[in-house]
Amino acid sequence: MNTTDIVLPDWLARCAENRPAHLAVQCGQAHWSFAELDRQATRLARQLASAGVREGHRVALLAANSLSYVAFVHALTRLGAILVPLNLRLTLEELCWQVRDVHASRLVFDADNASLAGEIGRALPQLPLATLASGSTQGEMVLSELPEKDVPLRTLIDLGATQAILYTSGTTGQPKGAIITYGMQWWNAVGSALNLGHSPDDRWLACLPLFHIGGLSILMRSVIYGISVMLYKKFDPVIINQALFEDKITIISVVAVMLQRMLAALDGDGEAGKGATYPATLRCVLLGGGPVPRPLLEECLLRDIPVVQTYGLTEACSQAVTLSPEDAKRKPASAGRPLPPVQLRIIDDNRPAAPGEPGEIFLQGPTITPGYAGKAEATAQAFHDGWFATGDIGYLDKDGYLYVLDRRADLIISGGENVYPAEIESVLLSHPAVEGVGVCGQADPQWGQSPVAFVVLKAGSTVSAQELANYAAQKLARYKQPKAIYFAGQLPRTSSGKLIRRELPTLLQTLHNTGAL
Amino acid sequence: MNTTDIVLPDWLARCAENRPAHLAVQCGQAHWSFAELDRQATRLARQLASAGVREGHRVALLAANSLSYVAFVHALTRLGAILVPLNLRLTLEELCWQVRDVHASRLVFDADNASLAGEIGRALPQLPLATLASGSTQGEMVLSELPEKDVPLRTLIDLGATQAILYTSGTTGQPKGAIITYGMQWWNAVGSALNLGHSPDDRWLACLPLFHIGGLSILMRSVIYGISVMLYKKFDPVIINQALFEDKITIISVVAVMLQRMLAALDGDGEAGKGATYPATLRCVLLGGGPVPRPLLEECLLRDIPVVQTYGLTEACSQAVTLSPEDAKRKPASAGRPLPPVQLRIIDDNRPAAPGEPGEIFLQGPTITPGYAGKAEATAQAFHDGWFATGDIGYLDKDGYLYVLDRRADLIISGGENVYPAEIESVLLSHPAVEGVGVCGQADPQWGQSPVAFVVLKAGSTVSAQELANYAAQKLARYKQPKAIYFAGQLPRTSSGKLIRRELPTLLQTLHNTGAL
Repeated sequence: MNTTDIVLPDWLARCAENRPAHLAVQCGQAHWSFAELDRQATRLARQLASAGVREGHRVALLAANSLSYVAFVHALTRLGAILVPLNLRLTLEELCWQVRDVHASRLVFDADNASLAGEIGRALPQLPLATLASGSTQGEMVLSELPEKDVPLRTLIDLGATQAILYTSGTTGQPKGAIITYGMQWWNAVGSALNLGHSPDDRWLACLPLFHIGGLSILMRSVIYGISVMLYKKFDPVIINQALFEDKITIISVVAVMLQRMLAALDGDGEAGKGATYPATLRCVLLGGGPVPRPLLEECLLRDIPVVQTYGLTEACSQAVTLSPEDAKRKPASAGRPLPPVQLRIIDDNRPAAPGEPGEIFLQGPTITPGYAGKAEATAQAFHDGWFATGDIGYLDKDGYLYVLDRRADLIISGGENVYPAEIESVLLSHPAVEGVGVCGQADPQWGQSPVAFVVLKAGSTVSAQELANYAAQKLARYKQPKAIYFAGQLPRTSSGKLIRRELPTLLQTLHNTGAL
Repeated sequence: MNTTDIVLPDWLARCAENRPAHLAVQCGQAHWSFAELDRQATRLARQLASAGVREGHRVALLAANSLSYVAFVHALTRLGAILVPLNLRLTLEELCWQVRDVHASRLVFDADNASLAGEIGRALPQLPLATLASGSTQGEMVLSELPEKDVPLRTLIDLGATQAILYTSGTTGQPKGAIITYGMQWWNAVGSALNLGHSPDDRWLACLPLFHIGGLSILMRSVIYGISVMLYKKFDPVIINQALFEDKITIISVVAVMLQRMLAALDGDGEAGKGATYPATLRCVLLGGGPVPRPLLEECLLRDIPVVQTYGLTEACSQAVTLSPEDAKRKPASAGRPLPPVQLRIIDDNRPAAPGEPGEIFLQGPTITPGYAGKAEATAQAFHDGWFATGDIGYLDKDGYLYVLDRRADLIISGGENVYPAEIESVLLSHPAVEGVGVCGQADPQWGQSPVAFVVLKAGSTVSAQELANYAAQKLARYKQPKAIYFAGQLPRTSSGKLIRRELPTLLQTLHNTGAL
């Protein structure tokens, strides 16, 4: 046995054998032990087999966080099929594009998303659909009331195999399906445990959507560690605060906007009062998903809330660099050190940058994606000598701690969701009246940032900002829609005509300063 | 990046970057932080390079547990050289055999073992020797006062590469060098952490010799986890008990004989008194190295001592199956469940045995050795379809928990050391007066078991038991020497003449019962 071909006993099955009665996942009032989750995953796998799902099939899932979602993830593992979790915030057009691009063999949806799934079905009439009923405490799960087919199910997990394909956009504006292998999940989970510590009594609160890597990776850690996940369908700061006080949560993953709202709700609570903190059972608030406002970190330090920042991305299977709890006070603004299996380099001008010098963040290691599904060119562009180019900018201090300065030069992070200017631009450019578009982020008190667009119209065309906004709304998820559309005579461009996106914020500032807005 | 070629940042270097001032290892009054251990390993690597040690060289080490031993282990990693730790209990003849068999490029020894090393040097005049001075708090380390050579040192660890070769005997009586890769160490450390939990504040007490896998693997866990090792040169139950009370030890690895002596010493202490226990800081007493007497387990349960049994072997890089702390009370006589990366099968008559049915224990997974150095045939014999045949006998209960019935049918475990009858038999058989020999274990109040021999003399030969004992003492480590030698007219044999070793204990019992002893 060497490292070339590592297979491990099925993670969930192992939990069901080791801790059958231990809580695996709770969502609202419904909860399953590992034994029950194991049973549900097997049952669902047999139903999916009966529906025709086979090894290697890519199955798109359009569903909110629920017990069924969790069973579904593990059911696909047992069939050797691949999960393609769809972002519920996307438009019909975006969803159809992804389903087609990934060559999904089937679309499974929950009751909440039946109408949207119906629309996708009408747009893609060849695509088989199936309903996933929500799991309950009674353990009832119905997949379109399908019978179970007695197929052989996998009992081993091949670390080289693809677990999921998660779409992420890039500077090109073209979404790409990042391949997530079982090995990436395993190495990420292990790296996280070595950094944060691991206790069999841990309870990880997941209020991030499971269609993002930040949520999905919590599910995988749960079965790799054998710990409980407290899953939430929606983020409500009051309810999450209550859980932290009452449910012995030890770790929670959040983005900055969530934590801000949680602190505000904590202060709003008459009993706790301003400056209140969480109980000592909460040992780690894992804070990711983009830049963190310094005052938020200071506020947490003041309240003794155990926040650790993390720098992660889909292509690194969530966390790539995470502060250790013992460094949280010493290096509060840092994202920390690479997880044990991860190598990190800062490259400036094709050379490793000196400490303190900013450059592009490159990553390597077994937690990094092998590439984008069906996108050989994009994959080749993303890797340099085996190193993954994140496009993000940061520097290392003299102790090797990472400070992230900017997510990809032009990336807008709005409430933890990544918004890619190029994607919005290409939508607006497709409008017949539009000649040129430039999109950048502006500060947003609620979401951190939100996108705004500068539009140059074709000679002789007329269109209102509202008309363009309506046009964008049909094609873009709500969080990607520009909060303002400005008409401009021209856009900042290089001599070769390439948009200089980094000058747009200055343009925006000028508009503000001159009172033009 | 896929699973075929996993390299990780050097474990010790990472600790030195993450926790430079944290205690890495303490031995007696001497102690090093991770930064200091890192510096010492680099310095020693450069000295070894200056002495001619190169990538792929196999370097034999004849030394007691010390800080220098730890630095030496990591220095070889940085050179890409392979550690061959020698068992200090072996005779000159056994040591020379191993050094020759492994094709050691060099023998390094500490001051305590200078005389024995000198004898090896005289027996193998081509073998270069070098002295390893003991490390001290001042950080002085001298390798024969060699200069340092400024060679490029490795900063990455290839999980497929060989870290060490550890000799272990087998049913053939021929010692074999088991290959221990970095990947085996990594996967074993991770599997252990997932089972036992992991805290950055852990302190692991190592009173097992570092030349055994049980000791060596603690050193590797220390740098993989970033935790402190409290290292002891010798086992003294009073001193170990004191450490458990005063030094915030969280985990200790012991064999049954050690634990028995620790409890006896605890009771001998006037203050604590009979039935005393250890402080709550001690969260795990990892009990391996062979069968555990049931009364010892019961005594520990009664005292609330957090004992967890483990079934391990050199070829599995120490632990393969370990009880989880939460099962310790529920399944006290069990060795537990396979570590997460390990697969286990019980095979009886070439078929998987049913629950409760005993059979041979087979293992598979990334913690299992790829084979024996230079022994293709022995390697081929040890593996069946990718599964490693341990030769040990056990059964699984209906919950999948392992109960070890017998280490290899004929293995004698004496004070945690494995004693192979075939090895003793082949030594006695080489005496000119001896025609046949059979060796088995007898109960020993101090060591659990000790070996005894039945000898059939050649027709017309005469020799005394004392003469044969002296002969064996020259060739066998003390713990392998038969505690008694009985002369017999014949030995139990199959029709084809093969010794039926399993009938020897009955023969021994008969001798006892008839008063013949």
